Amino acid sequence: MNILEKLNKRYASKAMDGTKIPEEKKQEILEAIRLAPTSLGFQPFKVIVVESQEVKQKIFDTAASGQPQIPNSSFTLIFATPQKVTHEMIENYMENVKVVRKLAPEKLIAYKAMVQGFLNKTDEEISIWASKQVYIALGFALYTAAMIDVDSVPIEGFNKSKLDEVLNLNELNLNSVCMMAVGNRHEELDYNAKLPKMRKPGAEMFINI
Amino acid sequence: MNILEKLNKRYASKAMDGTKIPEEKKQEILEAIRLAPTSLGFQPFKVIVVESQEVKQKIFDTAASGQPQIPNSSFTLIFATPQKVTHEMIENYMENVKVVRKLAPEKLIAYKAMVQGFLNKTDEEISIWASKQVYIALGFALYTAAMIDVDSVPIEGFNKSKLDEVLNLNELNLNSVCMMAVGNRHEELDYNAKLPKMRKPGAEMFINI
Repeated sequence: MNILEKLNKRYASKAMDGTKIPEEKKQEILEAIRLAPTSLGFQPFKVIVVESQEVKQKIFDTAASGQPQIPNSSFTLIFATPQKVTHEMIENYMENVKVVRKLAPEKLIAYKAMVQGFLNKTDEEISIWASKQVYIALGFALYTAAMIDVDSVPIEGFNKSKLDEVLNLNELNLNSVCMMAVGNRHEELDYNAKLPKMRKPGAEMFINI
Repeated sequence: MNILEKLNKRYASKAMDGTKIPEEKKQEILEAIRLAPTSLGFQPFKVIVVESQEVKQKIFDTAASGQPQIPNSSFTLIFATPQKVTHEMIENYMENVKVVRKLAPEKLIAYKAMVQGFLNKTDEEISIWASKQVYIALGFALYTAAMIDVDSVPIEGFNKSKLDEVLNLNELNLNSVCMMAVGNRHEELDYNAKLPKMRKPGAEMFINI
């Protein structure tokens, strides 16, 4: 498998055909998201995996009418960040550190103080920080889809507050950040599949020192 | 090649050995960054590729003393976003759209108006939006390094204003966002290489609907 060939073939699908992708491919994309790196390994987000046709349709109808891929996707992911970092999140994280990293008690105390200091941010700062971590995971998900020959599209163009309302995200201490629809392209309607990739030449992007 | 095995093996390298990685692997990572998707395909960032030992050392000494991987990396990437979206950036982008997408003149005019509307944001909003796009590309770079068995580490812990000063980024209308050091792990000093991966179980991350 040539990685760059796969990345060259991937594109933002503009129309999907409503068919399902194999369950093992879905699990591979989700596992890549779970393995994506984040600041401190804190993983400050949840991902809502929408397979219900009714809910996909409702998202399209109420919050993302410009995105017909959603109701025709195999599943749509909603990446959401916490409105507030809770005591429970920090405790769960520290429990994980304790079990996996096997830190000595005095090192654990110092590490926890560092983590609490790091997370001592306003809700707005937490939102910006956590959103960046989401975008690494979004990158991992898009990359994985390309590697296993599944079509996908990242989605930023939607009404966040309406989506949060439809999915009751406020009750879950969450705010939606971005979406990703995953499925099979519609052979006739997906005009983007046939367009050449548009990218800056390397000379415009890289500065070598 | 099993993708998930590769992603399970990747980790944030805490010490590198100062040796170089092959040029073709470096080019593969840079090409993955160039191919990463962004809002509108606008690619609102530049990447500074630092191979100069003197500059890597200076970055460590002045802006990132907690990151000894930098001077011992094969190369360090600095992802930077524009302080302001300029007329020239929009013109270059539209020229690319015109050449690659072959839009009819009246469609080009409508598309340009949409793009200008989208980019009509405060400098702070541009910074947040562009930073998110950077993090997709950072994800693509980290993922690629894992796939081709190269060690790497994403770096957020540094003094941004000092780094911008060292690299004269202000003169280039740029602000640093994050870094990534790429190289070969130090077999003795890289304690993170031996630690088990710490991730939330899927049940804590995914909500299925």
